[in-house]
Amino acid sequence: MNGFRVTHRASQGRGRVGELTTNHGVIETPVFMPVGTQATVKGLTPTMVADTGAQIILSNTYHLMLRPGADLIREFGGLHSFMNWDRPILTDSGGFQVFSLSAMRKITEEGVTFNSHIDGSTHLMTPKSVVDLQLAFNSDIMMPLDICTPYPATEAQTASDMALTIQWELEAYHYWREKAQGQLLFAIVQGGTYPHLRQECAARLNEVDFPGYAIGGVSVGEPIGEIEAIIENAIQYLPKDKPRYVMGLGLPENLRHAIACGVDMFDCVIPTRLARHGQFFTGGGERKNIRNKVFFSDHSPLDPSCDCDTCRHFSRAYIRHLLVAKEMLGAMLLSVHNIRFLVRLVDQIRNEMKKG
Amino acid sequence: MNGFRVTHRASQGRGRVGELTTNHGVIETPVFMPVGTQATVKGLTPTMVADTGAQIILSNTYHLMLRPGADLIREFGGLHSFMNWDRPILTDSGGFQVFSLSAMRKITEEGVTFNSHIDGSTHLMTPKSVVDLQLAFNSDIMMPLDICTPYPATEAQTASDMALTIQWELEAYHYWREKAQGQLLFAIVQGGTYPHLRQECAARLNEVDFPGYAIGGVSVGEPIGEIEAIIENAIQYLPKDKPRYVMGLGLPENLRHAIACGVDMFDCVIPTRLARHGQFFTGGGERKNIRNKVFFSDHSPLDPSCDCDTCRHFSRAYIRHLLVAKEMLGAMLLSVHNIRFLVRLVDQIRNEMKKG
Repeated sequence: MNGFRVTHRASQGRGRVGELTTNHGVIETPVFMPVGTQATVKGLTPTMVADTGAQIILSNTYHLMLRPGADLIREFGGLHSFMNWDRPILTDSGGFQVFSLSAMRKITEEGVTFNSHIDGSTHLMTPKSVVDLQLAFNSDIMMPLDICTPYPATEAQTASDMALTIQWELEAYHYWREKAQGQLLFAIVQGGTYPHLRQECAARLNEVDFPGYAIGGVSVGEPIGEIEAIIENAIQYLPKDKPRYVMGLGLPENLRHAIACGVDMFDCVIPTRLARHGQFFTGGGERKNIRNKVFFSDHSPLDPSCDCDTCRHFSRAYIRHLLVAKEMLGAMLLSVHNIRFLVRLVDQIRNEMKKG
Repeated sequence: MNGFRVTHRASQGRGRVGELTTNHGVIETPVFMPVGTQATVKGLTPTMVADTGAQIILSNTYHLMLRPGADLIREFGGLHSFMNWDRPILTDSGGFQVFSLSAMRKITEEGVTFNSHIDGSTHLMTPKSVVDLQLAFNSDIMMPLDICTPYPATEAQTASDMALTIQWELEAYHYWREKAQGQLLFAIVQGGTYPHLRQECAARLNEVDFPGYAIGGVSVGEPIGEIEAIIENAIQYLPKDKPRYVMGLGLPENLRHAIACGVDMFDCVIPTRLARHGQFFTGGGERKNIRNKVFFSDHSPLDPSCDCDTCRHFSRAYIRHLLVAKEMLGAMLLSVHNIRFLVRLVDQIRNEMKKG
């Protein structure tokens, strides 16, 4: 049956190793999920993504409902077949995008009305419609509609957003119970930077039995210390036998800290976005820019200890040339490396925890 | 020993099948060569290029001498190692780019002085320096410095450009004989749209023993009928036992005609350039644009008879979505298809000629 079980616990700290079973296979946690917002991880074929060791990718309901639309994806039997990816897919609800991309949005108890950032057309997302969209995508893991409170926000604003979010999530939960065929629905704990709101939100969402719990509304502009504090606080209120997911987190130092806190899942656009700007991870997670002149005649791979396709076959000098010459292959090769870097980092931490 | 031999002749027309042996292996002709101007076939990894069945790629001396520079590529032992491509590479001399890209150029007997289109810096290309550059690249097939007369041009202009081109080519030939270690140097026959000039140019270049002969200065803006006439005329003056290469030709109808005339080699940026604009080859070579609304929900592959990775795994609807959403993967998948389409077209014609 689909769901989660913890298989190992770290000898120090609260980290753990688990298995999350989905309609498209078992995911070993902790896991880093590369982002394919528009049904493609930017610049990579699905084969290249799989070759990085990625077990699951993330896509986005807001983007896909607008373009190409859920009807087309449903016709294909879901996202897996549409984009030719046969491993699990998690789709974000799009709550975050409604608030970050859309020029106009209006929140009522029913849901959120917004204008498309593409053509200005008006759309309504409700707790139920968002579940329906993700059923059309045949997402392995779905996220409910929520309000992603911006940072900073007053306590009153945060509390009011959270109250409606909880109401929407419970509505989504009951609808999902009725409709789903093995797809999992995760809860999203909001509450901003206010510990007692995070606690209250988690408690309310724990009253029903979501298959997983996410900490939402982090990595929206807070300083890193604030993010760590939110995670450390919120995680203690999440059920211990369910997967825990921090949305939007992807720097090596963030992953290490969150895993030590007991977080199981992460996603971030950062490896591919950095790649398009010429940046790559190396060593312990430092970022360097390949355009730097010091790499002009550097025969070594991006990271000498990396086993990715890029590091096995291409030099820093060649990749620098591609970036400087504005060749697509530059971002492609850096994306492969950056994703593999994060996947491998999480693999290593998982293996250490397995050994105890 | 490196060189060419004809292995089969078409039962009709002047088409032929051959084997061209180079430092990096044997090429079966006729052959279509994808273009990787800046040491990368745009949007594809070398593995993806090899998977299209491409036997050889083309790169460009003008671009590479300016960026990243010949010294860096020499340090890597040549282009193959620099870009991770182990099959043969032909490099164009850059004569065409000097005349099409550079703001300033000045021709003397010594060579051509020009300003870089990248940073305005001044450079001199001579018949010998162009051979040296291509030796640094370790190109399997090198092209000599030539003057690519624009279309239209007067007979006087064409004749004068041609005379200097012949002088440069002979200078390059003797220098190459001294320096080369298995790299081949092809001649370029110029003469514009004037049959007797083409004849004279070919005759002069036949006085020495180039390993191959190219028809240059076509596909520079002439109507297709004019191109065909130039090829039909010029080819009769080229040696029968040497490979014949028409530069810059890549539409299916052009390839069919030229092969029937006895041309062995082709290159063109068209498959990847069309791809970036959403266009793809289908059927007998018609071009369609994937952005067209008729493809919105089309579950079929780009070309139902194609065996490329794109056609085996992705639908027109998905690729249309990628193009409309401005995702890099769209151009990548279309490039794979368009290159494979031309490679396979030439493979098919070659196989028919083998059967007689």
